[in-house]
Amino acid sequence: MNNNSMTPKIIKISSKDNVGIAINTLENGSEFLPSLYTHSLIPQGHKVSLTNLKKGDSIYRYGVEIGKLLVDAPVGTWIDEHMISLPLAPDLDTLEYLSDGQFDFPTPDRLTFEGYKVDGCAYAGTRNILGITSTVQCVSGVLKVAVEKIKRELLPKYPQVNDVVSLEHSYGCGVAINATDADIPIRSIKNLIKNPNFGGEIMVVCLGCEKLTIDMLLSENEINSKNVVILQECSGYEQMIEAVMDMAKRKLEVLNKRKRETLPLSQLCIGLQCGGSDSFSGITANPATGYASDLLVKAGATVLFSEVTEVRDGVDKIAHRCTNSNTIHKLSSEMKWYDDYLSRSNVDRNANPTPGNKTGGLCNIVEKAMGSIAKSGTSPIVEVLSPGEIPTKCGMIFAATPASDFVCGTEQLASGITLQVLMTGRGTPYGLAAAPVIKVCSRKDLFDLWSDLIDVNAGTIATGEKSIEDVGVEIFNLILDVASGKKKSWAEEYKLENSLCIFNPAPIT
Amino acid sequence: MNNNSMTPKIIKISSKDNVGIAINTLENGSEFLPSLYTHSLIPQGHKVSLTNLKKGDSIYRYGVEIGKLLVDAPVGTWIDEHMISLPLAPDLDTLEYLSDGQFDFPTPDRLTFEGYKVDGCAYAGTRNILGITSTVQCVSGVLKVAVEKIKRELLPKYPQVNDVVSLEHSYGCGVAINATDADIPIRSIKNLIKNPNFGGEIMVVCLGCEKLTIDMLLSENEINSKNVVILQECSGYEQMIEAVMDMAKRKLEVLNKRKRETLPLSQLCIGLQCGGSDSFSGITANPATGYASDLLVKAGATVLFSEVTEVRDGVDKIAHRCTNSNTIHKLSSEMKWYDDYLSRSNVDRNANPTPGNKTGGLCNIVEKAMGSIAKSGTSPIVEVLSPGEIPTKCGMIFAATPASDFVCGTEQLASGITLQVLMTGRGTPYGLAAAPVIKVCSRKDLFDLWSDLIDVNAGTIATGEKSIEDVGVEIFNLILDVASGKKKSWAEEYKLENSLCIFNPAPIT
Repeated sequence: MNNNSMTPKIIKISSKDNVGIAINTLENGSEFLPSLYTHSLIPQGHKVSLTNLKKGDSIYRYGVEIGKLLVDAPVGTWIDEHMISLPLAPDLDTLEYLSDGQFDFPTPDRLTFEGYKVDGCAYAGTRNILGITSTVQCVSGVLKVAVEKIKRELLPKYPQVNDVVSLEHSYGCGVAINATDADIPIRSIKNLIKNPNFGGEIMVVCLGCEKLTIDMLLSENEINSKNVVILQECSGYEQMIEAVMDMAKRKLEVLNKRKRETLPLSQLCIGLQCGGSDSFSGITANPATGYASDLLVKAGATVLFSEVTEVRDGVDKIAHRCTNSNTIHKLSSEMKWYDDYLSRSNVDRNANPTPGNKTGGLCNIVEKAMGSIAKSGTSPIVEVLSPGEIPTKCGMIFAATPASDFVCGTEQLASGITLQVLMTGRGTPYGLAAAPVIKVCSRKDLFDLWSDLIDVNAGTIATGEKSIEDVGVEIFNLILDVASGKKKSWAEEYKLENSLCIFNPAPIT
Repeated sequence: MNNNSMTPKIIKISSKDNVGIAINTLENGSEFLPSLYTHSLIPQGHKVSLTNLKKGDSIYRYGVEIGKLLVDAPVGTWIDEHMISLPLAPDLDTLEYLSDGQFDFPTPDRLTFEGYKVDGCAYAGTRNILGITSTVQCVSGVLKVAVEKIKRELLPKYPQVNDVVSLEHSYGCGVAINATDADIPIRSIKNLIKNPNFGGEIMVVCLGCEKLTIDMLLSENEINSKNVVILQECSGYEQMIEAVMDMAKRKLEVLNKRKRETLPLSQLCIGLQCGGSDSFSGITANPATGYASDLLVKAGATVLFSEVTEVRDGVDKIAHRCTNSNTIHKLSSEMKWYDDYLSRSNVDRNANPTPGNKTGGLCNIVEKAMGSIAKSGTSPIVEVLSPGEIPTKCGMIFAATPASDFVCGTEQLASGITLQVLMTGRGTPYGLAAAPVIKVCSRKDLFDLWSDLIDVNAGTIATGEKSIEDVGVEIFNLILDVASGKKKSWAEEYKLENSLCIFNPAPIT
């Protein structure tokens, strides 16, 4: 990538790019390319101009215009966020699909994993968990006490069951249940119950007077005293605990009989997301995960990527990979919905980048988006899901969710992922209770600092020690090992579990 | 209240009322008043017409029009929700204050409580708790593990400290931090940190790259390594846990020196809310709590009532009790804000009632509101707070929050309540981690069913066994006993703790 009589100091992705990314912090006056010197300190991950640029010139990174210069920037200038204007977002009415669905990519060595089959479900579990759903936050106090008791008194008797997880959330009552968009949280909770990691066993704890009635979540033949506890029908607290314990015991007995078996990767559904991205995410962790995704898709698996505001600026590139006009239409309508949702509060997709993203060198949402979509690899995009919807196809799928880590994680769980890969630049100890989370970092510095939290170091790509393909294969293998229960990620090891955060764009009352 | 040659069958509140409330379910053909018979079964808590009513007639309950009849209803007819139209909400531009601030009410016997004084804070604590705030959900996985460890290894060494509470929430990142209305969640978290039950000790766990930066929550002199742990600055997981444990230990040492002392009730700030109301709430639990509130206010305490959508239809009555035009202006603007917030999703305040409210006999939001505002008693209303704001005056205050139990509870905690009273008709096992919750039920049936969850049975008012004043004094005394640490409510006894649900009307990204 670099002129090579000297150790590489910067990374340039596309020949069109007129900025480079500092691999490490460059002091003022550093020679960053032969005979080219910096005019100021350039922090790690930040952009330095590669030619003499003038006010009004376009800045290119990834071969894409990420904005226009608001000031002159002679070669060697630190191009920071305040020096670039934000381009318009791509038009949503002229998106075109170009893919014929063919995918010319080497088939990986491994085509199976060891999972838990689930009757009537296209995907298998990677874990064997008793999931207890609540219809409303009101029951959470009782449920927390009961789950502690189940873990203490019952779980040890059922060694084939990995965990008991309370799917508590803030939806269910005190909400405008008939409002526009209330379908999103309702669908999400309904589908969460059916996550393959819960083995098809249904256990729901209701209060009895809430707006989210049980018929919104379960079908008629599922609504019975084997699956549903209603606290208002219990004679007081002791009986509530007893009712939850009794049902849990019966469910644990069934779950304890489950066994892993060798299954084709078409029964694996995983999710991808970024959290705390930096300038390296788009050149190390995300493309390496993208390579792993391509291997998975080639082997028949289903891979969801998400985060609408981080796809919005690259939507034309995602559209080109779609395979038909229905998918394009849904892609466009999910993006329009989000544009509108944000505009109601007078913001747009540029409300996405965080202080940490900016410290990490990402100037605006366009630059962040170009890095973010790299995680989706190169395969055809076969489906677009509304938040919390369940896939109907195998392959690479765009699951439209917010970019918020905990909301994206929750919505992907609702869509049925049984494992998640999270790429991070700044570092987050994120984890999920209902599925193992593998963390891939973008920078060596972070891996050195957090060696007991980061599972894969993709920073080696920036330093030239490894290729994107090398790290991609490493991630692919780790995904299959963790999915098969042969390895644990750090987050699973320590039981680092973020709370569920259902996406509720509708008002609360 | 009733003609008395027979056991009372119905309750009529105002002489203007043309419907009565069935104290117990009345069979078809029951004599509900001398020589007046029902035309159908009237479920408990539901309305029966007291005269021959015609389509278009106004229905009066509490002396207030709760809607117009859509059909004829001869005397003895069950008036259900489908038979009544919804009146327009009161106009917000013509509200008038009528109170001069004088409050002619008997002074109660008890004028003090045993609380924990807090330096620089107008209110004292009722409990001595280490509160650990997080800036963002990302840190919650680590914080949950750490808090368990603190409870297990440290808390037993500090016997004067009641508990350790993690103030985790779903705000902090993945949010449009500059959006209209983002001030609400930010203020709420900022003020939660200062709840008097945390004794003025500040402990905040940050990630380091989130949007909710620490300077939005703490003042410059509070931001230091004694109060703030930043996970991204820790060398991995073990050191994160260690850093949180170390800080917790230092805070526990300080908190352990706190002692209860006899304090005037001007240092007590409590909150009131309804959860799962029914038709009896407005005639038993709520007016009895209103009487207790009047006693508290007379004795100098601060009492917050909330739930905008349940006050909206009685806002003119609340306005009359305000003491100046500033308060009226704020009352009106909070109501307008909420009207607008709901209308953005094509709903209005009538999205509030739940299936349980309706089963319990409440036809619409007007009828629910008339019962809801009864909890505020009769005293002057001296201030109106935006969600999560801290009071500047003692007395009865309207704290504008959503009616959602868990959101209202969270926002009242942010406003500084150190104890909450929750009135329920249908029954909820609700509780808070940061403050004791006393539960008052509206019906004897619920008390009989949940005798180990309900602290006060106000159902005795409907049966004529006790007066509103009797139960009000009982509630007043229990509030002071629980506040003083002499008694525990059931929710506290079992540690029934709902999750914090910060009110975030702004979009997530």
